[in-house]
Amino acid sequence: MKQELLDKVGCYEFLAEPFHCDFASRLFMGHLGNHLLNAADFHSNDRGYGMNYLMPRHKTWVLSRLAIEMQEMPKSYDKFYVETWVESAMKYFTSRNFKICSSVSDGSEAEKVYGYGKSVWAMIDTETRQPVDIFSIHDGLIKEYIETEKPCPIAASSRVKMGKNAELVRTIHTYYNDVDVNGHINSVKYIEHVLDLFDLDYYKTHFLQRFEIAYVAESHQGDQLNFYVEKVGDGGKTEKEASVNEPQKMEEFCIKITKISQNSDIEVEVVRSKVKFIKK
Amino acid sequence: MKQELLDKVGCYEFLAEPFHCDFASRLFMGHLGNHLLNAADFHSNDRGYGMNYLMPRHKTWVLSRLAIEMQEMPKSYDKFYVETWVESAMKYFTSRNFKICSSVSDGSEAEKVYGYGKSVWAMIDTETRQPVDIFSIHDGLIKEYIETEKPCPIAASSRVKMGKNAELVRTIHTYYNDVDVNGHINSVKYIEHVLDLFDLDYYKTHFLQRFEIAYVAESHQGDQLNFYVEKVGDGGKTEKEASVNEPQKMEEFCIKITKISQNSDIEVEVVRSKVKFIKK
Repeated sequence: MKQELLDKVGCYEFLAEPFHCDFASRLFMGHLGNHLLNAADFHSNDRGYGMNYLMPRHKTWVLSRLAIEMQEMPKSYDKFYVETWVESAMKYFTSRNFKICSSVSDGSEAEKVYGYGKSVWAMIDTETRQPVDIFSIHDGLIKEYIETEKPCPIAASSRVKMGKNAELVRTIHTYYNDVDVNGHINSVKYIEHVLDLFDLDYYKTHFLQRFEIAYVAESHQGDQLNFYVEKVGDGGKTEKEASVNEPQKMEEFCIKITKISQNSDIEVEVVRSKVKFIKK
Repeated sequence: MKQELLDKVGCYEFLAEPFHCDFASRLFMGHLGNHLLNAADFHSNDRGYGMNYLMPRHKTWVLSRLAIEMQEMPKSYDKFYVETWVESAMKYFTSRNFKICSSVSDGSEAEKVYGYGKSVWAMIDTETRQPVDIFSIHDGLIKEYIETEKPCPIAASSRVKMGKNAELVRTIHTYYNDVDVNGHINSVKYIEHVLDLFDLDYYKTHFLQRFEIAYVAESHQGDQLNFYVEKVGDGGKTEKEASVNEPQKMEEFCIKITKISQNSDIEVEVVRSKVKFIKK
């Protein structure tokens, strides 16, 4: 018996909670990332291919890449909406888009678009840690939900290239609050750790316009994380190339995180990220 | 013109979001603390003496003490309710209670009580940083909302005594994501930093039954925080006293946090906390 299909686009309401906002009363990017992951979770659960269905079957979604581009961040106490939809699905990867806006896009109110997000997900078997064929879930049900018409006008995640000038700028330890239900360092915590590389004073004069992150490998509580940063323009590109591509008011950084596990001295890459700030 | 009074007890619904849960799918205490602060905020805003009214008047509530005692932590995806009410108000301090439960206490459903909280708040002038007479707000409106009958059967915060055996166990730096809208380290972040002192393996065998924290002074981004821990029974009390008061299956720790600000070598106490674990 075939169930009736829901709308392809899901829409979820969130509040920019006061204690989730930064010094300037703007929602922290990490908390926004968390809201996007929640929206993805609600959307896929409602449609039958979410964690509620997968977990008892020893399968799980794994976030592979996330890119978020903002025109403005919701302010403290702002109610906002996250729309999310699946843009494409292949055997081992699916891409999901997000739109962050001030009202439901039904034309009833003037809508402010805060920004957009793009993400790539894989499905794995939680016992073997091997990739799972996404179409094996409910006979490829996810294909019924692919929405290719709705615009998401931001660049997809790029392959972040690190040059030779990446500098080790911080080493941190990982603790109880960093770890999620899978026993891994939580995706959102990496976002916070990356953005913590920039000082409060830097945020006072710069707007975080684009954030992207690729999850390369898992890390666990007790692992030591090393952060390498390279400013774009300082590295691979010549001064001239950099000045052509990046107007003066923009600053871009590539970040690589590696882990060193307890009782080990092998350094393994776990995350690559790229952040783009606009001078205020 | 006198406005109609609302109920003395406010009730707010929350969701134990999957990414706010720990390795065992139980809500992190820090996120629960955040929900209690939100409930306090919503309750006081709805009744006319909240931050929405105070902020434009250069006044703010400051959390002074918080104690949370749990029988069980909400599980991932659990919907739960936080009831909150003002138990007493004096010129410079007010005490606010919390009940965390699985359904609204209207008798319609079997109610599971997860736990309770008790808190103490002061009001300050954000310009002078001096205490403000709480009764100066709307002619002592808060007095109309004092609820003394509703039970909150947990001990109030105690004065946490540190003995001579407190040991410096960790030093951390503070970053962008630690700081709230007042420019201070966020109350919830201290909770997380305290609970991060215990290893994931410790949480696998122990249940955090009671958490209490007293905010003594403010710290700022860039401050270095030092964590001192003393196990109760190892310190001030004799072995015999300790074994009479604490059954074997309970472990209690007192924690003191101090700050050392940038370009300073003066160590100033900012937080005292006490945590009580029950062996599983």
